Amino acid sequence: MSEFRRDPIIGRWVIIDQSRAFSKIMPSAYESYPKDISKCPFCPGNEALTRKEILAYSGDPKRSPNTKDWNLRVVPNNRPVLEIEGSLKRRAEGMYDRMDGVGAHEIIIETPDHYLKEINATSDYYETVYKAFIDRIRDLRNDSRLEFILAFKNHGLAANATIEHPHSQLIAMPIVPKRVREEVNGGKNYFLYKERCVFCDTVSQELSSEARIVCENDMFAAMCPFASRYPFETWVLPKNHSSDFDSISPKEIASFSQLVRVVFAKLGRVLDDASYSALIHTAPLKERNLEHYHWHLEIIPKLTKTAGFEWGTGLYINPVSPEDAAKYLRESE
Amino acid sequence: MSEFRRDPIIGRWVIIDQSRAFSKIMPSAYESYPKDISKCPFCPGNEALTRKEILAYSGDPKRSPNTKDWNLRVVPNNRPVLEIEGSLKRRAEGMYDRMDGVGAHEIIIETPDHYLKEINATSDYYETVYKAFIDRIRDLRNDSRLEFILAFKNHGLAANATIEHPHSQLIAMPIVPKRVREEVNGGKNYFLYKERCVFCDTVSQELSSEARIVCENDMFAAMCPFASRYPFETWVLPKNHSSDFDSISPKEIASFSQLVRVVFAKLGRVLDDASYSALIHTAPLKERNLEHYHWHLEIIPKLTKTAGFEWGTGLYINPVSPEDAAKYLRESE
Repeated sequence: MSEFRRDPIIGRWVIIDQSRAFSKIMPSAYESYPKDISKCPFCPGNEALTRKEILAYSGDPKRSPNTKDWNLRVVPNNRPVLEIEGSLKRRAEGMYDRMDGVGAHEIIIETPDHYLKEINATSDYYETVYKAFIDRIRDLRNDSRLEFILAFKNHGLAANATIEHPHSQLIAMPIVPKRVREEVNGGKNYFLYKERCVFCDTVSQELSSEARIVCENDMFAAMCPFASRYPFETWVLPKNHSSDFDSISPKEIASFSQLVRVVFAKLGRVLDDASYSALIHTAPLKERNLEHYHWHLEIIPKLTKTAGFEWGTGLYINPVSPEDAAKYLRESE
Repeated sequence: MSEFRRDPIIGRWVIIDQSRAFSKIMPSAYESYPKDISKCPFCPGNEALTRKEILAYSGDPKRSPNTKDWNLRVVPNNRPVLEIEGSLKRRAEGMYDRMDGVGAHEIIIETPDHYLKEINATSDYYETVYKAFIDRIRDLRNDSRLEFILAFKNHGLAANATIEHPHSQLIAMPIVPKRVREEVNGGKNYFLYKERCVFCDTVSQELSSEARIVCENDMFAAMCPFASRYPFETWVLPKNHSSDFDSISPKEIASFSQLVRVVFAKLGRVLDDASYSALIHTAPLKERNLEHYHWHLEIIPKLTKTAGFEWGTGLYINPVSPEDAAKYLRESE
């Protein structure tokens, strides 16, 4: 199984996961998707190629598990980065710390349609996906060892999606990862000083200036952040304060899905179906209803490569201003 | 000119640099290096294709600047990310902060030989390059606006080296970047508790177990760190405590170059000349002689892609254990 290791200098955890063969990580491993999709593990009819399903939505109430006729299906990853079995006991090796790779790694197969293009997806499509995220997060909350769940999607080869069939992933982990802790702590520091949520203030300032707004509806706003790390980085945030993604109401899910559909259609058109990653940042599982944190969706198109400078500094160089990116996106459609 | 922008949530700076045309950042922009090198700006005879040189080493004491017959040449980047002109005044836009992109961006052309392979480079080659880094850092220290200088090299297309001719870069900036601040603060916390340098302790623990040591000489050790983020990540550290790279003696430069040559030759052989980034972490310019920080070289081969999970968490998944990586490297040659 995999292993968590803690960097002794800055306290950053990494996962050493040797289940991936070394030959598979060399640069030329994936160059294009296979044309023959008869062996796609995510296509209907191939249910036996995945592990046993955890959840499925189907129009047929009499459907048996792990058969066809589903609209969405959640399965454990065949090669999970983290697994439910194992111990959270930390072990020392001199000055170092290590811990079993405990957690969960699930695949959300979003649709039976291998070739579905996001540019053509409907609001209902997204609503089904987000409903599945929420169902799974609510269930995983019952495992008290877990501290955080990342729901994310990698789309396209440049974003490391090794299977073309549209799917998202959930990784549940026994630590609060560094980037989430930084956001929560940053929000807390701001709140201590201002007694306001920094995300609420951001949404309100952006809506009043409009320069970085992509689109909005009654409950949500989509914007390119002021300090965007990547070209066309786009965030979708609830207008009303809410720290926990899985606490949103069916009406909010519908409104969120409606806006997300518009955002992905715009990104798909402007960037010509470029690879991207999308991820939901929400409060750590054991810190609910935070007044200083605000859940949101981050969409990061994969247009640039990071290398020595970014790795060495943590400082990003972005060649497209968020004002230009938002303007391109606003004007598309 | 470019602009620094500060993220209001976590305080991370980014550089918005619109001098790079949008068309150049699309994924297919660079697929292979040009075969015709007659227009390579870094080749001898093409000195007019760069800005005026800042420094050159030559065997000919009578050589005129910006002519042939050099062994190494330092020039300002033709499209610098940061420039010397500008103001450090921070400007507010509601809750946001911005600042001119002040700093310096220099190219170290390491050799006249366009096709030099690192696997064949000599210790003298590295010694000349590191001597140039140090000469430039010592000179840039005179600009009191600067807080940190990153010396780094991107090698190969996957690491974003857009020109094949061997070269390194220096970016001098008016802020201490996040990743360096994290390392310095981590070292400080450890020192407060232990009254020892965490890097010195790491070197000493690694040398006693040997499992992650790649090679060593009298003054330096090369190792794959316990919590390596990337496969075959390799660090070279001085055995004796030293926080400032540019304070090392000529004898130390020679010893460092000797070991670095061995490390790059091993990496080149084991990874078949894969792309990589290498960078030097040293103390911030205005915090010299720190007892809790220790300069070092980090080499990061570009074998895996990061995407949604790493971006969303700051947690890295590494498919090769540092023990295996060190073993492969130790046994090569």
